Amino acid sequence: MIEPFAAVEVIAAKRDRYELTDPQIDWIISAYTRGVVADEQMSALLMAILLNGMNAREISRWTNAMINSGERMQWSALDRPTADKHSTGGVGDKITLPLAPLVAACGGAVPQLSGRGLGHTGGTLDKMEAIPGWRAELSNEEMLKVLQDCGAVICAAGAGLAPADKKLYALRDVTATVESIPLIASSIMSKKIAEGTSALILDVKTGSGAFMRDPVQAGILARTMVQLGKDAGVTTRALVTAMDVPLGLTAGNALEVRESIEVLAGGGPSDVVELTLLLAREMIEAAGIVGKDPETALKDGSAMDVWRRMVSAQGGDPDAALPMSKFQQDITATSAGRMISMDAMKVGVAAWRLGAGRSRQGEKVQAGAGVELHAKPGEEIVRGQKLMTLHTDESERFSRAVEILDGCIEIVPGGQVKRLPLIVERVEA
Amino acid sequence: MIEPFAAVEVIAAKRDRYELTDPQIDWIISAYTRGVVADEQMSALLMAILLNGMNAREISRWTNAMINSGERMQWSALDRPTADKHSTGGVGDKITLPLAPLVAACGGAVPQLSGRGLGHTGGTLDKMEAIPGWRAELSNEEMLKVLQDCGAVICAAGAGLAPADKKLYALRDVTATVESIPLIASSIMSKKIAEGTSALILDVKTGSGAFMRDPVQAGILARTMVQLGKDAGVTTRALVTAMDVPLGLTAGNALEVRESIEVLAGGGPSDVVELTLLLAREMIEAAGIVGKDPETALKDGSAMDVWRRMVSAQGGDPDAALPMSKFQQDITATSAGRMISMDAMKVGVAAWRLGAGRSRQGEKVQAGAGVELHAKPGEEIVRGQKLMTLHTDESERFSRAVEILDGCIEIVPGGQVKRLPLIVERVEA
Repeated sequence: MIEPFAAVEVIAAKRDRYELTDPQIDWIISAYTRGVVADEQMSALLMAILLNGMNAREISRWTNAMINSGERMQWSALDRPTADKHSTGGVGDKITLPLAPLVAACGGAVPQLSGRGLGHTGGTLDKMEAIPGWRAELSNEEMLKVLQDCGAVICAAGAGLAPADKKLYALRDVTATVESIPLIASSIMSKKIAEGTSALILDVKTGSGAFMRDPVQAGILARTMVQLGKDAGVTTRALVTAMDVPLGLTAGNALEVRESIEVLAGGGPSDVVELTLLLAREMIEAAGIVGKDPETALKDGSAMDVWRRMVSAQGGDPDAALPMSKFQQDITATSAGRMISMDAMKVGVAAWRLGAGRSRQGEKVQAGAGVELHAKPGEEIVRGQKLMTLHTDESERFSRAVEILDGCIEIVPGGQVKRLPLIVERVEA
Repeated sequence: MIEPFAAVEVIAAKRDRYELTDPQIDWIISAYTRGVVADEQMSALLMAILLNGMNAREISRWTNAMINSGERMQWSALDRPTADKHSTGGVGDKITLPLAPLVAACGGAVPQLSGRGLGHTGGTLDKMEAIPGWRAELSNEEMLKVLQDCGAVICAAGAGLAPADKKLYALRDVTATVESIPLIASSIMSKKIAEGTSALILDVKTGSGAFMRDPVQAGILARTMVQLGKDAGVTTRALVTAMDVPLGLTAGNALEVRESIEVLAGGGPSDVVELTLLLAREMIEAAGIVGKDPETALKDGSAMDVWRRMVSAQGGDPDAALPMSKFQQDITATSAGRMISMDAMKVGVAAWRLGAGRSRQGEKVQAGAGVELHAKPGEEIVRGQKLMTLHTDESERFSRAVEILDGCIEIVPGGQVKRLPLIVERVEA
C-alpha cells in the first residue's frame, strides 16, 4: 500500500495550528491502527492536539475515523428501541447497575458496554464481578441473546469495537495527553456510536471527584459530545451532574452492588434514586418510548426482575451473598455541628487505597473493599458519631486510607452546606 | 533503581506551562537514555517543549544533562589551545574543510567532530569521503594522534558523546519536533561542549537555504547558544551569516572538496575566502592565539600543508584525482540582464536530487554529483550564457533537478540585487 501522507507532515500541520484535513485525519487513524504510524509519532500529534485544539469538523471526523477502524454493531434484530447511558466516571457512581434493568423494564433495550476502573474512579465491570459467578466477557452473539432475553446487558466491549480508540487510550494514559476535550469526547463517542445504540444519554460528572472538575469545562465536553452524537444520527442528550460529593453511601465494588439492589428493591439513598430516575426518563424519552413510568418499575419489582434475569444470564447468582471484606474500621466525628462538605476525590482515593481500585491495567481488585458512608453533607453531626466505615481484606491498608481522608469532611456548627446541585446543566442538540 | 519521578508528571508539567525543575530535567534525560522513559513519552514532552518553550535555566540544564549522558573529551595532553567551529548548515557550506587546517596552521588545535548530510544541506563527512581512501570513523586515541600530529582532525563523533542527544535527534526527526530553538540549541551545544573544545565559533546560517530562514530567529538561536557556551565555560561567539545564496560556486561532495583545495591554494571564490578568514580570525582570537595572520597561512602554503597531512593521516590520498560524475548538463540563461537573486534552497534541493544528498539515514551518496555555478547575483548575464552545470552518475536524475531549479535565478535588466550581507550579526557573551 502506498501511503498518501507522511506522519511528520500531519504532526507539523497541527503543531503549526493548521486544521487537519479530512483525508489527513482518516489516514492518520487508519495508519496508526495498522502500525504504520508509530506510537512516538502519534503521541507528538496528541500533544499538539491537546495544546492547539481541534475544531468541530476535525473532532467529528476524528471520531468517525475511530469508529471506522473497527466494526459497528447492529441491533436491527431487536424488537425494541435501544438506549444507552455513559458516565464520565465518579466516586460511588453505580447508576448503571439499577438503570440498565430499569430502562429494560420500561421497554428499552440497553446494550451497556462498560469498562474497568483505573485510579480513584470505579469501573462497572469491577462492580458486577463482585457478584459470584458473573462474567463480563461475552461474544457478540451472547450479547445479543442476553439483550433479547432480558432487555439489558452489561458486558465488556469486544476487541473489534473502535480498536484505534483502544490503542490511543492506552497511549494517552502514559503520555499526559488525557486531558483534552477533543480527545476525551471522540474517545467516548466513538465507542458509543460503534456500539450501535440509537439513543444515548451522557452523564458528565463535575466537581472534585470527577475527571472534569470545572463545571464550565464539563459543559463544553457535554456539548461537544452531544454534537458528535447528532452528527452520527444518534439521539444524544447530556446531563452535567454533581461529583463534588460521592453518589449514595458507598464506594467499592460489592458495597455498590448492594446499594444498587436496594434501589431496585424500591429503597436506597435519595440521590442515587433521583439520578437513576432522571437518567431513565431521559433514556426512555430519547428512545421514543411513551407511557412508561420508571418510578413504577422500581416499585412493582419489574426492574428487579430484569436485574435477576440479567445477572443469571451471565452466570451470576442473584441470590448469592456478596463478598464482605475481612477487616473494618470506623471513622468517627471529632467535633459536632453541621457537615458542610465531603470531598469526593478523597473518598475515591481512600476506596482505591483500601483495595477497591487498581493502579495498573490488569491488577486485581478486592470485591469487598471500599468506603461506607454513614452521613452526608447537610446532616447535623454529634461528636463521636460514626461517619464512615472502611473495608479491606488487608488491614495494613487502613493507615494510608485514613491519611488521605484527613480534611475530607468539614463540620461547622450552623455552617452553610457547600455543594453543587445534583443536576448542573442539561444539554440537548 | 527507584525512579524519583514518573514520566507522565514531567510531561504534564511542561504541558501545563510550568518550568521543569533541575531534578526533573536531569532525571528525564537520564531515564530516556536508560530506556526507562519510552520514545512515545519523550516525543510528547518534546512537542510540549516546542509549543510551550523553555527558559534560559531550563535550556542550560537540559544541555548539561545531555552532556552528562556520555563522556566529555579531554585535550589536556595537547600543547596548543583548542578551537572549534560549528555551522547550522547550508548549501555549498564547505568552510570547515579549509578552515580546520588553516586554524591549525596558525597554532590552534581543531577537534572537528562532524556529521553527515540529510535533506538539502550537505554533511562535512560526506564531502571528505569524496577523497579516495579517507575514513571518517576514528577511535578517541586515533583522533588525539591526528590532532597532535597535524593540529586538526575532521571525523565522526563517537557513540560515547552525548548519547541522549543522538537518541533525541533521531526521535525529533520523525515526530516533527525539530523546529524548536531550545531543542536545536541544546542539541548542538551538548555535542560541542562534550567535545571538550575551549573556544567555539558558531556560524548560524539564515536565509532560504538555511534551517533558520528568518534572521530574527537565527539571532535568537545564536544568542541562546552563546549563553549555553558561556554557562559551560567555553569561550563562545556566533556569527549569523547569509544563506539566501549558496556559498561559493559548488554544492556537492567532490565539487566542494575541489573548491576548498582552491581556497587552501590561495584562490577560490571570494565569499568562501572571506568567510573562512573571518571565522579563522574569530577562532584564533577566542583561543587566545596572538600574532598570527590566517591570510598569510593561506598564501604561504602552510594551511595546505596541514590539509595534506590531515588527509593522509586518515588514509586519504591528497594527490588522488577527485571523483567526477558520469553525466553533466548545462543550464543557460534564457534572457539577459543583471542576476538579482539565486535561491539557495533550490540549488540545495537540486544537488540533493542529483545524488549528492540522502533522504534517509544510511543512504549512499554520489561523490561526484552536485551543482556547479558559473555566475552569482550581481553579475551581468547575456542570453545563452552558461549559468550552472549539473553533475550526476544517473542521467534520469536531471529532469527532477531541472524542475526544482525553475525560478531559482532572477535576471532583470538594470535590477537591484536582493541578497543578505555575508555577515548579518555578530554575537558575543
